[in-house]
Amino acid sequence: MTRRTGRRPGNPDTREAILDAARTAFAERGFDSASIRAIAATAGVDPALVHHYFGSKDQLFLAAMNSPVDPGELVPKVLAGPLDGIGERLVRTFLGVWDSPAGAAGVALLRSAVSNEWTARLMREFLTTQVLRRVLDQLDVDRAELPLRGSLVATQLGGLGLMRYVIRLEPVASADPELLVAMIGPTVQRYLTGPLPE
Amino acid sequence: MTRRTGRRPGNPDTREAILDAARTAFAERGFDSASIRAIAATAGVDPALVHHYFGSKDQLFLAAMNSPVDPGELVPKVLAGPLDGIGERLVRTFLGVWDSPAGAAGVALLRSAVSNEWTARLMREFLTTQVLRRVLDQLDVDRAELPLRGSLVATQLGGLGLMRYVIRLEPVASADPELLVAMIGPTVQRYLTGPLPE
Repeated sequence: MTRRTGRRPGNPDTREAILDAARTAFAERGFDSASIRAIAATAGVDPALVHHYFGSKDQLFLAAMNSPVDPGELVPKVLAGPLDGIGERLVRTFLGVWDSPAGAAGVALLRSAVSNEWTARLMREFLTTQVLRRVLDQLDVDRAELPLRGSLVATQLGGLGLMRYVIRLEPVASADPELLVAMIGPTVQRYLTGPLPE
Repeated sequence: MTRRTGRRPGNPDTREAILDAARTAFAERGFDSASIRAIAATAGVDPALVHHYFGSKDQLFLAAMNSPVDPGELVPKVLAGPLDGIGERLVRTFLGVWDSPAGAAGVALLRSAVSNEWTARLMREFLTTQVLRRVLDQLDVDRAELPLRGSLVATQLGGLGLMRYVIRLEPVASADPELLVAMIGPTVQRYLTGPLPE
């Protein structure tokens, strides 16, 4: 038997217990209703330890999801610039993440969400609270329309990820990113800022 | 032990051997290159028996995919009508199938394609040869553009299926189909008949 001697960021069993409790809480109660206090209680640790290991509730959620990126860092880049270019910037950023080494984790996450109802719930919460809410908060549209606009964007970007990286349907799978930005950007733009029916 | 006494459409073991051989052939060689003769040889049966059990190569492929619908029947309905309404008709037909009892098989198929490289290959062949090729053959656009147009449509419709039926992201998951037709139809229309970059 070998024993690891390197520095460990906290007790691995404790970390895993916290992440397990977090996944359950976020999937069962949703991101907004889940509390660090309750997650700590389930894991049998002090809430201060959860903060010490993971920082904020957002950061804990990203760790629980095995998210390869932090939407809190990416979204401001998408929002920087004129509003009528937000669709193209969102597609360009999306492809930049998935085409990077982080993309493999994205594929794993998508696979898991599709095969497992539990991960699907986490994915819903992740899309809604970590990605769409951050983008939509900045748009100058009727707030009542935001959930529909956000979930329409998710159909297009989720499908782009599915076909380009998982099913690998050609020629989308190996297309130049800027071609996809030019074709799919206007779709995302219309879903975000275009007119809705009635 | 109980024994089924009802009428069976051929020997179940033979049918399954043919379907196994078909799945391997379609995934390895592609739909166009796979031959009924080679599939029959792999399954150890006469090619006439394959035709007897399954009919055409298209029908054998649908059975091998466990496809709940026959695109050869659906696509003509989508194509019937003015060309500028093809996007809306395609979305409406897509939702009609997934909202029907056949939708459960569609979800199972999508789950399998996402988790399994073998099924992903079959899904690619299915989309390309059974769905997109049939639709695109009828369009009045440059034939060299057809693969890109078809795979762009697949990103939008695949993502619609993913978010509405698998991830169940609201409000898309329970939205009225005609709202989705109105919002997503123009996207599919632009991918099929709109201008492409450069």
